[in-house]
Amino acid sequence: MKVSLIQMSVGENKEQNLARAAEMIKNARGADVIMLPEMFCCPYEAARFPEYAEEAGGRVYRALAEMARSSGAYLIGGSMPELDGGRVYNTSFVFDPDGRLAARHRKAHLFDIDVQGGQRFFESETLSAGDEPTVFNTRFGRFGVCVCFDIRFPEFIRSMRADFIFVPAAFNMTTGPLHWELLFRARAVDEQAFTFGCAPARNEKSSYVSYANSIAVSPWGRVIGSAGAGETILTVEAERSEALAVRRQIPTGR
Amino acid sequence: MKVSLIQMSVGENKEQNLARAAEMIKNARGADVIMLPEMFCCPYEAARFPEYAEEAGGRVYRALAEMARSSGAYLIGGSMPELDGGRVYNTSFVFDPDGRLAARHRKAHLFDIDVQGGQRFFESETLSAGDEPTVFNTRFGRFGVCVCFDIRFPEFIRSMRADFIFVPAAFNMTTGPLHWELLFRARAVDEQAFTFGCAPARNEKSSYVSYANSIAVSPWGRVIGSAGAGETILTVEAERSEALAVRRQIPTGR
Repeated sequence: MKVSLIQMSVGENKEQNLARAAEMIKNARGADVIMLPEMFCCPYEAARFPEYAEEAGGRVYRALAEMARSSGAYLIGGSMPELDGGRVYNTSFVFDPDGRLAARHRKAHLFDIDVQGGQRFFESETLSAGDEPTVFNTRFGRFGVCVCFDIRFPEFIRSMRADFIFVPAAFNMTTGPLHWELLFRARAVDEQAFTFGCAPARNEKSSYVSYANSIAVSPWGRVIGSAGAGETILTVEAERSEALAVRRQIPTGR
Repeated sequence: MKVSLIQMSVGENKEQNLARAAEMIKNARGADVIMLPEMFCCPYEAARFPEYAEEAGGRVYRALAEMARSSGAYLIGGSMPELDGGRVYNTSFVFDPDGRLAARHRKAHLFDIDVQGGQRFFESETLSAGDEPTVFNTRFGRFGVCVCFDIRFPEFIRSMRADFIFVPAAFNMTTGPLHWELLFRARAVDEQAFTFGCAPARNEKSSYVSYANSIAVSPWGRVIGSAGAGETILTVEAERSEALAVRRQIPTGR
């Protein structure tokens, strides 16, 4: 199974972001699974999520379905502000290779932090939280999808019992150096599963600076692919058989 | 709070092991908490645990109580094969600074692994498993104690809700380089707590070669102390206030 993580630059213009995503996805030829970053079509600013929010079936949703269909890959559609009944969620829509909706994950743990001398951010100022983990089965194995801060909750990740854990995310210059690689390696070893984190490319001029460094980790906890700060496509191979081998050799009940 | 980890050499002679532990503990003057390694008084060999096993109140137990009393520190007494009703457990007895039993942890997840081209070991050939996490309160904060393989189970560690997590342990030359530091950092970040791992010094001639590298990690996930392979005492400072600060700044419900 070939996985491509689209570490794209994200700007203020939704149409330009969609066009950039589509263009990079075209360049990820041959991938079986493609993932976009958290909030790939709008700036990561709590105050602005509502103005970019759309309902399921809207412009961004339909564009993602078409990107999945034309690429012939599963598309973990990063995340977007999803409007539903007056609330806004940080939602990842997932489409299968035929462009049909395969899953929807609403970020269940909102990102509210205030690190002394570091990053401050309160998603809860404008967002509502989802309340369940998201998993679905494919011919490659069991996929789990969560969004960014969700990965800090081992019991939540555990409940997925996934073989492959996909995480559109956007750590920052405080939590990134401290915890980004550590958490993806930790969850890979805990779950004896592959983990993938896809972040926006770093833009020092944004109000929220993405740590970038999109990452892929094997069920042994080894980093098998890692992007830098700039715009890039990170492609790795991942097979469920490796997760099964780890579970057999170090049986922890996964 | 000053914590000293006694990374001692462990041999076949129980009395010599006890004497070595007592001598090194004397050299850890001023410590508030002292920890010994997993199976600090016998070789780490499944087949030999029964011959070294003792009941609570026996020779090793009484020696540990006396070491705690004379040092005036909490003593996380590594672990030992504990005999109870015909069964043998991998048990950590913990004594308070007056030499009274403060807690008892029976390793809840037995170490049964068979890594291809690497370590093979089956504790379950001779040991029985405990069935609960172990925590107790002190004037320094809430202490959790578990043994080695237990640290691979995030939901088990989570249930402790501890400020300081003490882990007598003995990873090997397969799992040590892969997972030792990663797991202590992961549990520190997950629990926003200090984690401490105390291992026997490395002896290349043992049938089971300890990875050693005793470690202390802060609630930010930073390694604040790390031993090498040889016999040594690792001493670090750790305050609950740092755990509280992390929980306030990155609130994850700990």
